[in-house]
Amino acid sequence: MDEDSSGLFVIKLGGTEGVDFRAICQDVAALLGEGRRVVLVHGGSAEATALGESLGYPPRFITSPSGHTSRYTDRRTLEIFVMAVNGKINTFLVEQLQALGVNAVGLSGVDGRLLLAERKESIISVENGRRRIIRDDFSGKIEEVNVGFLHQLLENGYTPVVAPLALSRHGETLNVDADRAAAMIAAALGASTLILLTAAPGLLRHFPDENTLISELTLAQIDQALEAAQGRMKKKVLGAQEALEGGVKRVLIADGRVESPIRRALQGEGTTILA
Amino acid sequence: MDEDSSGLFVIKLGGTEGVDFRAICQDVAALLGEGRRVVLVHGGSAEATALGESLGYPPRFITSPSGHTSRYTDRRTLEIFVMAVNGKINTFLVEQLQALGVNAVGLSGVDGRLLLAERKESIISVENGRRRIIRDDFSGKIEEVNVGFLHQLLENGYTPVVAPLALSRHGETLNVDADRAAAMIAAALGASTLILLTAAPGLLRHFPDENTLISELTLAQIDQALEAAQGRMKKKVLGAQEALEGGVKRVLIADGRVESPIRRALQGEGTTILA
Repeated sequence: MDEDSSGLFVIKLGGTEGVDFRAICQDVAALLGEGRRVVLVHGGSAEATALGESLGYPPRFITSPSGHTSRYTDRRTLEIFVMAVNGKINTFLVEQLQALGVNAVGLSGVDGRLLLAERKESIISVENGRRRIIRDDFSGKIEEVNVGFLHQLLENGYTPVVAPLALSRHGETLNVDADRAAAMIAAALGASTLILLTAAPGLLRHFPDENTLISELTLAQIDQALEAAQGRMKKKVLGAQEALEGGVKRVLIADGRVESPIRRALQGEGTTILA
Repeated sequence: MDEDSSGLFVIKLGGTEGVDFRAICQDVAALLGEGRRVVLVHGGSAEATALGESLGYPPRFITSPSGHTSRYTDRRTLEIFVMAVNGKINTFLVEQLQALGVNAVGLSGVDGRLLLAERKESIISVENGRRRIIRDDFSGKIEEVNVGFLHQLLENGYTPVVAPLALSRHGETLNVDADRAAAMIAAALGASTLILLTAAPGLLRHFPDENTLISELTLAQIDQALEAAQGRMKKKVLGAQEALEGGVKRVLIADGRVESPIRRALQGEGTTILA
């Protein structure tokens, strides 16, 4: 598909509406046919939100003092997230890949201690100008990847498909950011390329103007990129930074809504970030 | 825990109310501490039914011409089953085991082609005395177990926790019976013992009189046992038969509602069926 014939690719699929799982799975099957190895990481916030609404338990969000917004994951929200993301999305992604002949294995970070994370013991939330401390949130920041487990699967011809859950040191299931999970996995595995597929053509200089795509930048310019990035894109740029600092050669942020999304990303159609 | 020190145990946990997952997980941790290897298989019908009802899509059941009742698994029911069973139950069983130091890996039969099944292409349902052919049912009968994948996990110190889904030859996800999945896995792995934990003290001669427990029988007597078995217990006895005919040395049908359920089963408190 591109000049790099030796690569291990870590590919993250957004759960956002419009991202074409079928087209991504077809490209994954083609990559494997060319002898590449792939680890997939997926999100699923939109599906979890929809399930929570159907169950009469819509998501609530926390705004940090610095203005960041995140999902408030109490235990019931975690259950809903687990059902939607590690249940439905993960299982049916594996099904789609299997139907294309890819021997996929669905996992979350809880399985085999794949992703160990530190739980955020307390979070400060700002509501109507008042600060509140939240202590029953089950989200975390990944600290360790069980690389041996992934290698063992890859060496035996399996394609891991990873849902964004992690295990705390106390054995609790935690919700983690999927872009950063993909970045941590890519760095830990020494992947050549991390591909973040999303519902945008790449990183935009002036969001949401799709004509202002930044087609290439380097790690040295990432602070500017972080300023340009809006909303969820900030996490992708942070993930890109973590991956590159961890030894990944390049990160591609590219459109997941088109035909042949991985092939196009590798041809440079999105944003390429080099170390 | 018992005289057999070399064993690989396959243990099936019912999803029925009252079965004590915490007590089972504690016994599993103890077994592993004694150097045994364990594969867990779980059900989850009750959880799937509850989720379906919460989502306004309660389960429907099919009655076969011979009077057997089974869940009608159209694609939406399959999605609900996947969320409840492969999502919630599987993930939180793995979490409980991890919190006890057991390095569990949650899987379903879709992962790594662990369980290949034949889809029931058409099912005859009897409704109000009329026969109807159902063609959109996603359930199946297991035909093949990927033993290599399970061995690979066991040899590397992982404890597989298997949800009752299988993959069809056409790459479709199918709902399969968990008792028979456990039996197929036990036979394929050459397990010494299959333990079926349920919300009853064992096989009863006169259901539901718990004073009529059959404490021991042999494969030669299984036809009588099949006649005594009521409802779900019939599948367990069928599973026991399949396991014993497949080379498993003994099957224990025992109470999953008590403290130390596995230890008690191994001490002969339930029904022991020998080859």
